[in-house]
Amino acid sequence: MTTERRTPTVTYYTATTLDGFLADQNDSLDWLLRQDQDKRGPQNYDDFIEKIGAIVMGSTTYAWILAHLERTGEPWFYSQPSWVMSTRDLPRFPGADIRFAAGSVADVYADLRAAAGESGIWVIGGGDLAGQFADAGLLDEVIVSIAPVTLGAGRPLLPRRLDLRLVETAASGAFVTARFDVVGPLQEDRAPTGD
Amino acid sequence: MTTERRTPTVTYYTATTLDGFLADQNDSLDWLLRQDQDKRGPQNYDDFIEKIGAIVMGSTTYAWILAHLERTGEPWFYSQPSWVMSTRDLPRFPGADIRFAAGSVADVYADLRAAAGESGIWVIGGGDLAGQFADAGLLDEVIVSIAPVTLGAGRPLLPRRLDLRLVETAASGAFVTARFDVVGPLQEDRAPTGD
Repeated sequence: MTTERRTPTVTYYTATTLDGFLADQNDSLDWLLRQDQDKRGPQNYDDFIEKIGAIVMGSTTYAWILAHLERTGEPWFYSQPSWVMSTRDLPRFPGADIRFAAGSVADVYADLRAAAGESGIWVIGGGDLAGQFADAGLLDEVIVSIAPVTLGAGRPLLPRRLDLRLVETAASGAFVTARFDVVGPLQEDRAPTGD
Repeated sequence: MTTERRTPTVTYYTATTLDGFLADQNDSLDWLLRQDQDKRGPQNYDDFIEKIGAIVMGSTTYAWILAHLERTGEPWFYSQPSWVMSTRDLPRFPGADIRFAAGSVADVYADLRAAAGESGIWVIGGGDLAGQFADAGLLDEVIVSIAPVTLGAGRPLLPRRLDLRLVETAASGAFVTARFDVVGPLQEDRAPTGD
């Protein structure tokens, strides 16, 4: 595995609690949505999404978005083509460019890459999907907004043993933002190199 | 619960992985000890320990330190009086000022406070002990050095539902450092106030 960027770059961009949870055990994001955001701050969403050409998410994330949109009446969030990794039969949100895929992330990556062109690929989550991209050597970077909250339990940020490399960090509103390159499997877990 | 600082300030100062683990399931800290440190950087240990007058740790943390010192032949780390919260019978490390305590953290806090005077109290860990101080309304701040590592499983940073408030953050060597005030139980978990 290498830290050289391939094109397009594959980024896991997400918010997390300080103790590494994406959501609590009831999938509530209340703890997140009430935090002060700096919408023009470091690693802000508008700057990020502008560079994204294709999106991929797991079925739980998609189901959460569907429930959220049904509750609020908002339209679909993303103009980019969005892949939903699922073996489940899920409804297609009206007006959304969604493709369902049940294969491996390596299979889906070919389609994501073709759609993204020179733009980036965003792995929305959940954590295990980001982990599957890392397992396949296809995850380039992790950008997190760390909320000033602990939950103690919930959906894990990235349930893998990985080495990252800090690239930049800053305060942004109530959050710590940090961008990491993905180095690869945790050092002691790696197979010895042959040199 | 309030965020006004009492004297002495009670601080949970620790390293963690990005996904909120203090150690892996085998209590290994290899992932931590090989990271680049900036020993003069923000929230560095030397500046921190200078302001500490009393220390408290759980029995697993103490057992880890004992094993580490036996393996390396190093002397005891701390000049400050150090409480070990334990119902287990544990050996006393030679030359260390250690007091064993089996009561509640509120009981031990009186002794810590008397020993610390105007200096601070350091809760070394583990996470549940820090959580017990938070439960008792006795944890003022959390200072973390976030290593560029995910472990996916291990000993949890702070297994509670808590609101914190970011005070400062910076890069320091391979780490993100961040200091938070403890606000209290997570907002939706709090009892309604009477006003």
